Amino acid sequence: MIKVGIVGGTGYTGVELLRLLALHPQAEVSVITSRSEDGVKVADMYPNLRDYYPELTFSNPSAKELGQCDAVFFATPHGVAHGLAAELLAEGTKVLDLSADFRLENIAEWEQWYGQTHGAPELVTEAVYGLPEVNREAIKQARLIAVPGCYPTAVQLGWLPLVEAGLVSGPMIASCASGVSGAGRGTKLGSLFCEATENMMAYAVTGHRHLPEIKQGLRRASGGQNFDVTFTPHLVPMIRGIHASLYATVQDRTVDLQQLFEQYYQHEQFVDVLPAGINPQTRSVRGANYCRLAVYRPQDGDTVVVLSVIDNLVKGASGQAIQNLNILFGWPENSGLESVALMP
Amino acid sequence: MIKVGIVGGTGYTGVELLRLLALHPQAEVSVITSRSEDGVKVADMYPNLRDYYPELTFSNPSAKELGQCDAVFFATPHGVAHGLAAELLAEGTKVLDLSADFRLENIAEWEQWYGQTHGAPELVTEAVYGLPEVNREAIKQARLIAVPGCYPTAVQLGWLPLVEAGLVSGPMIASCASGVSGAGRGTKLGSLFCEATENMMAYAVTGHRHLPEIKQGLRRASGGQNFDVTFTPHLVPMIRGIHASLYATVQDRTVDLQQLFEQYYQHEQFVDVLPAGINPQTRSVRGANYCRLAVYRPQDGDTVVVLSVIDNLVKGASGQAIQNLNILFGWPENSGLESVALMP
Amino acid sequence: MIKVGIVGGTGYTGVELLRLLALHPQAEVSVITSRSEDGVKVADMYPNLRDYYPELTFSNPSAKELGQCDAVFFATPHGVAHGLAAELLAEGTKVLDLSADFRLENIAEWEQWYGQTHGAPELVTEAVYGLPEVNREAIKQARLIAVPGCYPTAVQLGWLPLVEAGLVSGPMIASCASGVSGAGRGTKLGSLFCEATENMMAYAVTGHRHLPEIKQGLRRASGGQNFDVTFTPHLVPMIRGIHASLYATVQDRTVDLQQLFEQYYQHEQFVDVLPAGINPQTRSVRGANYCRLAVYRPQDGDTVVVLSVIDNLVKGASGQAIQNLNILFGWPENSGLESVALMP
Amino acid sequence: MIKVGIVGGTGYTGVELLRLLALHPQAEVSVITSRSEDGVKVADMYPNLRDYYPELTFSNPSAKELGQCDAVFFATPHGVAHGLAAELLAEGTKVLDLSADFRLENIAEWEQWYGQTHGAPELVTEAVYGLPEVNREAIKQARLIAVPGCYPTAVQLGWLPLVEAGLVSGPMIASCASGVSGAGRGTKLGSLFCEATENMMAYAVTGHRHLPEIKQGLRRASGGQNFDVTFTPHLVPMIRGIHASLYATVQDRTVDLQQLFEQYYQHEQFVDVLPAGINPQTRSVRGANYCRLAVYRPQDGDTVVVLSVIDNLVKGASGQAIQNLNILFGWPENSGLESVALMP
Repeated sequence: MIKVGIVGGTGYTGVELLRLLALHPQAEVSVITSRSEDGVKVADMYPNLRDYYPELTFSNPSAKELGQCDAVFFATPHGVAHGLAAELLAEGTKVLDLSADFRLENIAEWEQWYGQTHGAPELVTEAVYGLPEVNREAIKQARLIAVPGCYPTAVQLGWLPLVEAGLVSGPMIASCASGVSGAGRGTKLGSLFCEATENMMAYAVTGHRHLPEIKQGLRRASGGQNFDVTFTPHLVPMIRGIHASLYATVQDRTVDLQQLFEQYYQHEQFVDVLPAGINPQTRSVRGANYCRLAVYRPQDGDTVVVLSVIDNLVKGASGQAIQNLNILFGWPENSGLESVALMP
Repeated sequence: MIKVGIVGGTGYTGVELLRLLALHPQAEVSVITSRSEDGVKVADMYPNLRDYYPELTFSNPSAKELGQCDAVFFATPHGVAHGLAAELLAEGTKVLDLSADFRLENIAEWEQWYGQTHGAPELVTEAVYGLPEVNREAIKQARLIAVPGCYPTAVQLGWLPLVEAGLVSGPMIASCASGVSGAGRGTKLGSLFCEATENMMAYAVTGHRHLPEIKQGLRRASGGQNFDVTFTPHLVPMIRGIHASLYATVQDRTVDLQQLFEQYYQHEQFVDVLPAGINPQTRSVRGANYCRLAVYRPQDGDTVVVLSVIDNLVKGASGQAIQNLNILFGWPENSGLESVALMP
Repeated sequence: MIKVGIVGGTGYTGVELLRLLALHPQAEVSVITSRSEDGVKVADMYPNLRDYYPELTFSNPSAKELGQCDAVFFATPHGVAHGLAAELLAEGTKVLDLSADFRLENIAEWEQWYGQTHGAPELVTEAVYGLPEVNREAIKQARLIAVPGCYPTAVQLGWLPLVEAGLVSGPMIASCASGVSGAGRGTKLGSLFCEATENMMAYAVTGHRHLPEIKQGLRRASGGQNFDVTFTPHLVPMIRGIHASLYATVQDRTVDLQQLFEQYYQHEQFVDVLPAGINPQTRSVRGANYCRLAVYRPQDGDTVVVLSVIDNLVKGASGQAIQNLNILFGWPENSGLESVALMP
Repeated sequence: MIKVGIVGGTGYTGVELLRLLALHPQAEVSVITSRSEDGVKVADMYPNLRDYYPELTFSNPSAKELGQCDAVFFATPHGVAHGLAAELLAEGTKVLDLSADFRLENIAEWEQWYGQTHGAPELVTEAVYGLPEVNREAIKQARLIAVPGCYPTAVQLGWLPLVEAGLVSGPMIASCASGVSGAGRGTKLGSLFCEATENMMAYAVTGHRHLPEIKQGLRRASGGQNFDVTFTPHLVPMIRGIHASLYATVQDRTVDLQQLFEQYYQHEQFVDVLPAGINPQTRSVRGANYCRLAVYRPQDGDTVVVLSVIDNLVKGASGQAIQNLNILFGWPENSGLESVALMP
């Protein structure tokens, strides 16, 4: 049983880590930090966790104390992990950062999109981008893991088979939608029930921070090609779920796309290529670590449509972080990730 | 006060006609038909209408009786209006068909998409496609109006300014979403609360019946050009609303798209081009006859993104049908269509 | 056309006043105040109102300026109307207060429940409790109207026929539920979509501020009797709607309760006693000013169950305020209140 | 590993059994029956189960074949278990009936409420009412278990401590609400998304089939007293959850109710008495087998208010059935029931 810590445990990715780790056979949460809730019991804040963490209490430990954990998750706004990662690594603690702090290799690009100076540029090269389907071997050796963003996970898993096979060209469209939990537990007007329910809208149309992460992932997968990606996120009235509808022009109409996808993911436990003609539903992954995919070439045309769904809090954040932890420590990749999606 | 009839009054477009006509100053509903509810009072079925139609009762009249109305709306499945339209027109009754029966000019295409023989091919040439923003003059003279589909309304209004200006080329993507009322009041498994809520999914990806209608509209607007359109509808958990996210490659980056859209719709009461940077929300048209639009060229690239929202039951069906009625009879175009969108 | 002002126009009752007054034939909004949004156009904040108030702008006027309105609505937190009402009345302006400032005749009780000193005790005697079904004649003569709370409206309309007839005794239970808009537009954690949707919970079980208002109303209706009322509010995941389930012991089993209710409300336009056996649905009043009622004596026992629904923002707040305005100025009671409930 | 069968596996309680049994360490599903889906793979119908039951297929076995299971769950409409139970018991198979077939000891009463002749009256005496908190010892010895209804579970767990202590008298009110999954997976109009969402309504006010079950439970707990219970169920727009608001008159004001409840349930793993002042939320048990409770005596009066929440598909049906299975077979009572409620 290793000891894990969670920095920033009061947001939705923090409580989701707690939910999943509650049943993890090899890891237990020994520290969870929160400045605002210092001294409050986790069980008092989250009634669903009452029986699982009767004594765990939010605290505000020093880096030194945190460093006694074998692994630490950052479920924090961007910028926080920058300041603590080096110290934890020095203690021999593995760092799994769910924020964007170490996702982009290009520091100037990071600074442009996140509007601040990068706080730990010396660690960027070492950080491993924690998409297991791409980087499993590197993850095994890593000390510092940049857990991918929610949209980038859904989009990359949808496009990787095509991009690696060199099958797509021209403008690529990622028309994506997220449940409201993607906006976090902060009390913003747009996240209110009465503002978000019975509504759909696009946001960040001119540019969302996940765009450079998506483009970086496609560039790496293609061996260096720059893709012309338009990424439009939308907000839909559900708690959880990312639905990515991906459009691109296929270079070769003769390829059996269904077969291509099935083969590409045949050994991936958490990526499920649905039988031809079945469309993925976000609820089919609610609370579970799966990505489900479908691929189409409608009307026998040149446009390939990939549909990709994940739970933004699980495969899009906390579940994927735990999947990385499992790989890091050599455990079965689904430790703590066995629960079945809740449907209905 | 003219007399109007509604054929097929028990579906969602039927009851929406009743809601809107309840406050219409120039028209009153004198007949509403339903075989299954023959003899039932409208007020007993729809408690929101109790004070507006205390006596109106579903009936099963002959075509002759129906023909005593000045205008008849068909809020029926496809195929029904085929059988009755000629007889009503012979009585001098105006016919406004909310079904797809007269939307496609190409009869073979209609038969292919709808899987049955066309029942009134001789009327197709006469039928006017009831999109007022395109066909207002023809509507004034019409006897038979094919009220557009919900998706085609949102998509065409979004793309018309670009297509008429000859500004787009290459593959065009219409990634659209609908609230569940778009599936009608039929008791289908997929329309159940527990199946549809907290979920998003695509459907009819290989081909939806609204695709040929969209392509026909763009072809006409462009003077005969065939566009390569991929149309992907999605189901989202809300009652009302269509959200269309439209992607195409712009031919000329120097055009001020915001200005183009504002000018194109400057005289249209029900099409609202939002100020630059504001994204349309489906709830901003809930219960109202508006289409709200935004246009972007993200990252200063070649892809033009148009966002278009309507209420599928209003501008996407019953409201647009009444707008056509108003034009036909020379009334103010917003008669019966004044109510404000319900927000929150 | 009279001029009305709205103080505190950025909350849900404020925007609902704007929605309803947009179609009011005798009143127009000339001033809407907000300190935080001073200078912002109403149309920029509420896209559903773009065509109705193209120029109206939030402002921060002096009491003198406000006093140029013929009537002023307070859609403010409690305590605000206390400070301004006297000055407005001195200008000859009618005051309709949607807050709780003048609802309770017992000033000590008000101060106890609201936790502050009453700011205008000298006006309390003059204030008329604006429940038209009870106080229509007094409202006609009023200068200052205390518009009832949402729960008290639903509960009183449900129990008045029984209480006035002296038919109930013993403990009375008001087990009520509200949509989330009842919590206002403030950015509270509990009002977030992800906290409120797919959930039901009670709140304020030990005592809610609407309890003394309910008891005062029943006391007045009974000619001075004090009732033992337990009032339990619940939060349910919908935007709008109050559902009150009211339980009491009936004194006389021989009374025809259905008839009693129908007769009691036979001349009330906005109170609809449903046919026996039909249960009121909150959606049947969504956006409309109705209260719909049903009355039962289940299992032929002694317990009388009354079910009462309203839209908390309409008959429970802004609609009822306008109904009061209409009575005050001698207009048809449904001016501006004609729109049909949105269903579905 | 024992073999279990599920009769009627296509409803919501059937699929919920599959979800929970997927992770059960001592039981595996070897048969699942459905006439309508005979031959269809479970994985094709429920995408969330694809990885857990890759080969399990709906079938239509003989009673003999079913009898090869060690235990069989009936997730069927009432009347079905009547016809099969005797045969299965004869094979030595344990029967756990989630329907109402064996819940009422009074056969005449059963026939009156269910409108049909009881099909297996000879088994009624033997059947054990499967509420573990009351009948754990009898369950251990049972062959045939009548799994309690959803409302009766929430109501009884809420009132048992008071009734057993002889603390309540007079009329008792159970004002309860259920999520829409309580209506099952049948395609009824009232279960449609567009009919059920954004709505709350009471139903079955004159008498619901769970009323005699509730009264029987209270009678047994009190040693034979008949209680005057009014039970009013409501439908609220959420998938899962029962919220019971229970009102009764307390006989003795000096009793510390919080302490009474905490002591009563101190050894019950799945009943959680919340700290004083905390209200149970249905989402805190979403997908989990808990009942969470709060008890109040508001305004220091005579009315005791108990709030009780469960997930209707888990503690209100399939989870409780598995809890019974665990007791029957001597396994840890939480086998297969460890998953944490999904929140948010």
